[in-house]
Parts: sequence; C-alpha cells; structure tokens
Amino acid sequence: MSQKEVKKSKSAPYESELRQDIVTGDWVVIATGRAKRPQEFAEGKRVITDDAVDPFENPEESGQEKDVLIYNREDGEWSLRVFPNKYPAFSRGRAARELSEGPYFAMTGVGYHEIVVTRDPKLSLALLDVWQGAEVFDAYQDRYLSLMNKKSVNYIQIFHNHGKEAGASIAHPHSQLMAVPVVSPYIALELKGAEEYFLSHKRKVYSVMTEYESQAKKRVIFENEHFIAFCPFASRVAFEIWVVGKRENPYFERITDDEKFSLAEITQKALYAIYRGLGDPPYNFYIHTSPCDGKDYPHYQWHIEILPHTATWAGFELSTGIEISTIQPEVAGEYLREQLSK
Amino acid sequence: MSQKEVKKSKSAPYESELRQDIVTGDWVVIATGRAKRPQEFAEGKRVITDDAVDPFENPEESGQEKDVLIYNREDGEWSLRVFPNKYPAFSRGRAARELSEGPYFAMTGVGYHEIVVTRDPKLSLALLDVWQGAEVFDAYQDRYLSLMNKKSVNYIQIFHNHGKEAGASIAHPHSQLMAVPVVSPYIALELKGAEEYFLSHKRKVYSVMTEYESQAKKRVIFENEHFIAFCPFASRVAFEIWVVGKRENPYFERITDDEKFSLAEITQKALYAIYRGLGDPPYNFYIHTSPCDGKDYPHYQWHIEILPHTATWAGFELSTGIEISTIQPEVAGEYLREQLSK
Repeated sequence: MSQKEVKKSKSAPYESELRQDIVTGDWVVIATGRAKRPQEFAEGKRVITDDAVDPFENPEESGQEKDVLIYNREDGEWSLRVFPNKYPAFSRGRAARELSEGPYFAMTGVGYHEIVVTRDPKLSLALLDVWQGAEVFDAYQDRYLSLMNKKSVNYIQIFHNHGKEAGASIAHPHSQLMAVPVVSPYIALELKGAEEYFLSHKRKVYSVMTEYESQAKKRVIFENEHFIAFCPFASRVAFEIWVVGKRENPYFERITDDEKFSLAEITQKALYAIYRGLGDPPYNFYIHTSPCDGKDYPHYQWHIEILPHTATWAGFELSTGIEISTIQPEVAGEYLREQLSK
Repeated sequence: MSQKEVKKSKSAPYESELRQDIVTGDWVVIATGRAKRPQEFAEGKRVITDDAVDPFENPEESGQEKDVLIYNREDGEWSLRVFPNKYPAFSRGRAARELSEGPYFAMTGVGYHEIVVTRDPKLSLALLDVWQGAEVFDAYQDRYLSLMNKKSVNYIQIFHNHGKEAGASIAHPHSQLMAVPVVSPYIALELKGAEEYFLSHKRKVYSVMTEYESQAKKRVIFENEHFIAFCPFASRVAFEIWVVGKRENPYFERITDDEKFSLAEITQKALYAIYRGLGDPPYNFYIHTSPCDGKDYPHYQWHIEILPHTATWAGFELSTGIEISTIQPEVAGEYLREQLSK
C-alpha cells in the first residue's frame, strides 16, 4: 500500500487542518473531506442538497456512523439520536500535531463533529412540543459533558442551521456539535469584554444587560422563570435574538433540569416568533459558552444567539466586521413579541 | 410641519445610527433609510433587484445624486462617475452625536457613502482594459484623498460587490466607498497583529509574507513590478486572493501612478482568474488600509482581499469566527495561476 493510500484509509479517512492567520492570529479550517476538484466549484452547486433522499430518516441504512447517543420513546422507537458527522470538519485524533510551513503555523484539525437529529423530518425545533424541545437541550448537554474533558478539546460549539440559505444542506432538522482544540476568536472577544467590563464597572455585563432589558421591556420577546429573550441593542442582523439566563452562570453544561425545560420553552418561543412573523426564514442559532480548557471564566455568561437570514453580508460587512441592519431592534422586538400574543 | 416631517425632510433624509456591542465593543449600523415594515421581511425579497431598469446607465435621469467626480473620455462621454449613494448607510453630517440608552452607547451614523460607476453596464472589472481598470483605482484614490480629512471620518472602506449572492443589488458594475467615524474591528485586529509581530520578530509581517510567498511560489497567482497576488495560507474561503504591494506602505492613498497601473493590472488578472476558473462567481473585494485618524501605523501594509462567494458561512463560522474551507489554498492557487497561462 502506498503512502498516499494509507492516508486515505479508514483510520484516517481524510485530512483536516487548522491554519492560523499570521496577522490576526485567527484560525481557519481546511477540511478537504468533501473536497471537490477546483473545476467543480465552477459548476454552480454551491450548496449540495438532495431533497429526494433524507439521510437522517434511517441513519443506519443511509450509511451514517454509529450512534453515540440515542433517546427512545415509550413505544421503543427512537426520538432523538446523535452520531458522528459522515463528513466531519475535524478528524478524531488524540492530540493536534504541528504542521508549520515557512513563517506560518498550522496543526492537524483534530476534534469531534457530531449531528443531533430529531425524529420528525418536517417539524423544526420551533414546532416541536416543549418536551421534545427539552430533549434536544438534554442531548446538547449530554454530549457536551462527554466531550469536554477530552485531551484535544478546548472549546465546544453547538449550533443549528435551518434552511438552505443558512447552510443546512440536509432539510431534516438537525443540530451540530464541534469539539475543537482552539478557543474561537468570537468567544475570546466576549470573554475579554466581559472581564474588562467587570474590572471597570464591578458588575457582570450580561447581568447588567438582562436586568436593563427586563425593565425597559421594549426589546423583550419573551421571559420565563429562568431566561429572557430579546433583540440585542446592537443587533447585527434584522430580528436577531439573544436568549440569556437570569442566574449568573458562565458554563452551559451546568444548567439544571428546571432551567433546561425553561430554556427549551423560551428558545422554541423565539424561533416560533421568527417562523410566524417572518414566514419561516432560514436562520442559524448557536450556544456561546465558556471554553472547556480548564480555566475559569467567572465574568462570562453562557447564552444563545439566533440570527435569522434576512440579508446578505456584503463587501462592507466582510471587510469591516461592522454589520448594517435596516430595522431598529426596538421595532423588531415589538413585532416578534406580538407574534406570540396573537 | 410636524416634528416627524422635519426629520424626513431633504436636509436629513433619514436616520442612521452606530450602536456599540456592550460586550465586545464592536459596532453595528442601524440604517433605516431603505427600511421595510417588519411584515415585508416575510415576503421573501431578501435582495431587492430590478434587472429591467439600470439606475446607473443614466444616473441623472434615474434620480441619483449629483456627481462628486466624473472622468470623461476623449469624445466627451463619461467613462466613470462617482456620486453619493441614494440610500446611504451613513448620513452626511458634521460630527457624530451621542445617542446613549441605559447601559448602552450609540451615536449618529454620520459619514459618506458613495458609488463608483464604470460606464459599461455589462463589463465587470475583470473584463475592462487595463487603462479603464486604472481609472477605477484613480477614482478610489481621488475620493479617498477628498474625504480623509473630514472631521467625522476616521476610516474609509472601499469595496466592490459582484453578483447578487455577494450583495450587489444592482447589476451594473460599481464599487462603494464608506467614510465612517469609527475604525473597523477587522482593521483594528490587523493593526494590532502587525504591531505585535513587529515587536516580537523585528520584521513587518506583510513583508515576511510576501517575500515567503514570492519565493515558495505555490500559492502565487500573479506577480508584477509592484505587487503580488496569492491565495493566503489561512484562506477563509475557497479561492480567496490577497493583493499586496512589494513596497512597504501602510497607506493606500499614497500609491504612486506607476503603482496604480501595476495594481489595476494585477487586480484585474486575479479577478479574471476567478471569472475564468470558477465561471464568473459572485465575489467581494475590498481595500484594507490604515485609518485616517491622524495616527501613524508604521507596521501595517495596505492591501486588497478578494473573497469569491463559493460557500455559505453557516452556524459554525457565524458562531466561532473560524471559517471552514474545502480546498487547500495551494490547490486553489495553482488552479487560478493556470487560468492566466492558458
């Protein structure tokens, strides 16, 4: 067997590389597992979708990897399952290996990339009943706890893409979890901001925000015992929503069962307001939480951010990082709030 | 005239607000000039385009604002013109006014937002002859120099969107210039990285990079007297290209006439390689240069970044800031380089 064939063998199905921008220190992933030849990029299939086949309806039959978690209903049928992504952006491996070149730094993209699938092929999270919704957050927490202490894992990103334009290449509702060796730049920025705010104000910035929003009311969409959902003052996209806990807690994995039920309710309400008010638009939501790198982040607050896909980020946004939104968050908040009372 | 009508009058056609994220310090723009009612977001027209009418063919007749710059051909016909955007993201005003609310900070979004239009409604920059291309860079520099000393301007972003999916709502080729009161977060990150690199390596990071790329050759697409175009080692998207000068120069506005011609040639070559190799995909390109805030940035290097729109940034990219690309920059570089030699 040649060297090349060994690399493509089952134990190392393909390559993933984390490369660092030499100027900014930011990371990118070069994952060639689903690689196309350069010419194929010209063929216009920018998102590969095949609506005729639902690979998540019968995961075993469609050649998905073996489940790492499965929840069954009382009748013995599965209601939720988690399995490794067939085309992972990160390859499972014990530890990252250095792959430098000239002045640049890179390492092997080791980590975990899993898919969380709910049973019904049509019902999005917004439309599931709250018990099913709570199961999704149960699974997030279960898998988080299983992966957080792995040697190669320093940060775990849980996210959900809904709709093709938001990057969901498979229509069957599913979330994804990526456990990676580097702390994401956006999280690093939030951690730094939270710490600096605490140093200069002696108060935690997320608590200041939730207390103010809860009292000002104008951007609030929904509030329950443990959480508040609101359009952030500096929304990056029209109808952006944040779901933030009322209890100070930097670590998503430490939510209680009570909180999890409350979290499912409010996230589903927020997604339903978007579904109803904006005609089921594409969206992304994700959890921002503290790294699992063994350090403490006492001033941070884990939370969920929901980004409806209502506009295209073009040259200005891509070049500056300053997003332009065409609706006031107060107007968006009022409109979304109304969707839940009608 | 009521208060409301005064606000909507000619002298203040509409509102633009810069809001700061309380955690990260990043900025967003809430520009309600082209505001839709919330319901209209549900109607699916995410990018408003009207291919039947070309508003830039006869700018006066289509109600564009008065030119601020016009280049004429020998026959007296215009070849390039620059005018204020009819729907600016920033409103012209002398100085930013504070607009705080509770714990948050905001200010009026004052600045300049201009459109640079080349004459031919079909020929993109990749297909113009190099003299016409050079005129575009002439116009960028002309307008930059005119706006950089304005009181409300601390950063000028020049960018170009090509294709609907890249945010070009009008098909007629045009670039945009936004002169804004705040330094963009992405530029701030590059400035900081460039300074830190210099402090620890005693060399300028962009020079280290261009020298290495020029010698390694594998990611280089084209090189001429003054510039080098290559796929960056840590490309964020497939077929990303950077165009960087060989002379150390932090300030775009200080390029010489010779350099400008060289710049037009290499940028057009890079865009042509994308056009030919990828079947005229949507793309964005933009200039990253030092702020015009009166400070010096000796370790920075102005440059151009070209981002073909070959994939959708989904939940992982949006949540982490870590982009996943499915092609190695070396493979992309070789493929694009070949497009210019065939």
